[in-house]
Amino acid sequence: MVNLQLNCETVRKVLVGFIENEVRKAGFERVVVGLSGGVDSSLSAYLAAEALGPQNVWAILMPYRTSNPESAEHATLVVQALRINSLTVDITPMVEAYFAMFPDADQVRRGNKMARERMTILFDHSARLRALVLGTSNKTELLLGYGTLHGDMASAVNPLGDLYKTQIRQLARHMQLPTVIVEKQPSADLWVGQTDEAELGFTYEEVDRVLHLLVDQRCEVADLIGEEAFDEKFVSAVSHKIQASQYKRRLPVIAKISSRTIDRDFRYPRDWGR
Amino acid sequence: MVNLQLNCETVRKVLVGFIENEVRKAGFERVVVGLSGGVDSSLSAYLAAEALGPQNVWAILMPYRTSNPESAEHATLVVQALRINSLTVDITPMVEAYFAMFPDADQVRRGNKMARERMTILFDHSARLRALVLGTSNKTELLLGYGTLHGDMASAVNPLGDLYKTQIRQLARHMQLPTVIVEKQPSADLWVGQTDEAELGFTYEEVDRVLHLLVDQRCEVADLIGEEAFDEKFVSAVSHKIQASQYKRRLPVIAKISSRTIDRDFRYPRDWGR
Repeated sequence: MVNLQLNCETVRKVLVGFIENEVRKAGFERVVVGLSGGVDSSLSAYLAAEALGPQNVWAILMPYRTSNPESAEHATLVVQALRINSLTVDITPMVEAYFAMFPDADQVRRGNKMARERMTILFDHSARLRALVLGTSNKTELLLGYGTLHGDMASAVNPLGDLYKTQIRQLARHMQLPTVIVEKQPSADLWVGQTDEAELGFTYEEVDRVLHLLVDQRCEVADLIGEEAFDEKFVSAVSHKIQASQYKRRLPVIAKISSRTIDRDFRYPRDWGR
Repeated sequence: MVNLQLNCETVRKVLVGFIENEVRKAGFERVVVGLSGGVDSSLSAYLAAEALGPQNVWAILMPYRTSNPESAEHATLVVQALRINSLTVDITPMVEAYFAMFPDADQVRRGNKMARERMTILFDHSARLRALVLGTSNKTELLLGYGTLHGDMASAVNPLGDLYKTQIRQLARHMQLPTVIVEKQPSADLWVGQTDEAELGFTYEEVDRVLHLLVDQRCEVADLIGEEAFDEKFVSAVSHKIQASQYKRRLPVIAKISSRTIDRDFRYPRDWGR
């Protein structure tokens, strides 16, 4: 039995408290969030506005010349609904300057460079505005490795990283995000016509059930195939993706020389001393 | 008693074996390294050339228009001595395109944006060349937080992260790096005239002794002030820097909702299953 149904009101309170606590503890009052117009970053913005007040939330819209115009329209809906601060930084000039040197780069390289350009802008605005970078990666993406390391996966505090994509949608509905945002096809919008589910080859509904069983319920691949009539190839592919992307969820490995090595014997929590 | 003297030949063998093992285990044969002409990245390149053969090492030189011309000259010395592959990517067009939008940004913001631009180029070349990004951050920088998060601190494997700056110099001399590289004033070269020691306000010799006592020997600040006649303000400042930069040495914090949260209850090693 797979039950991914959240108690939405409880989760909302937990996440609002989490943002408030983590931001204040780090000595900040504000957050900055890259607002794409998708459900994940919109939900992060909603939670932050409730936690810190809309005056303390900065949304950065970072379109590229091929971005779907709907993305900016949906982001603007969120900015207006929440009355948060916003700023648009077009990433086209920086991205074009780079790929003028490497014109034969494929879509994946271009998409990753764009995601990382957006990260550099968010962290620059973190310094400029004295605001922490709010994360927008959900648990489905993080477990599948479906995101760019040092790109959209980078943040200071991430309220969404323990919620599967289908749970993000539940909470987004509960918090009354614009229906058009909750119901549209998820897309990284890194190239024209891209949708997550077409690129991944399965739906979020399907994969979230498998991820929950493999990760949260600690099932083996063999258990799933026998018990719930999951497709063997699909379950194996998901299991492989989790393992193969582990490097994106850990820090660089440091060669051990001394008695106390960073991230090995020297591992205080992120908020050590706070 | 502070003894930071390495057994250089042993450490060299450990680090060469580390690079070989980590790169192969991850399914790669090559590395890509951002070569600044400083002693850290030069030493990383020397170790990698010995571990993987020079044909499997790609050095990327990434000058900015204000970079000291000596930096590229010194990087070229390393490329020629090792007979490794090299490529120059000028970051000026991308950086200028961005700061044309934010002309009043200060030196620190500019320096961090440059460090992150270089990261995006290294990771793009990681994909382009099927090569892992080799780290160049040393233990002194990592503990002081003297580096850019998602910039020069980002890598896949880091052979230098457990060696203090003074130990980097020992090993560099032992491995016969060009003397001009080992003996020059360390500098991030992010603005004209920048030197690490002027910016930090102390020498690497001084700070490495304090770091070793606080971190490796697990001394308290009070122990150092009594025992070895260290300056109290200096030791406190170093201790504060270590603690205040802990966020740069840990992953983003994720709000806990489920029974198994990434980086909390789900923490397989980076090379899980390999």
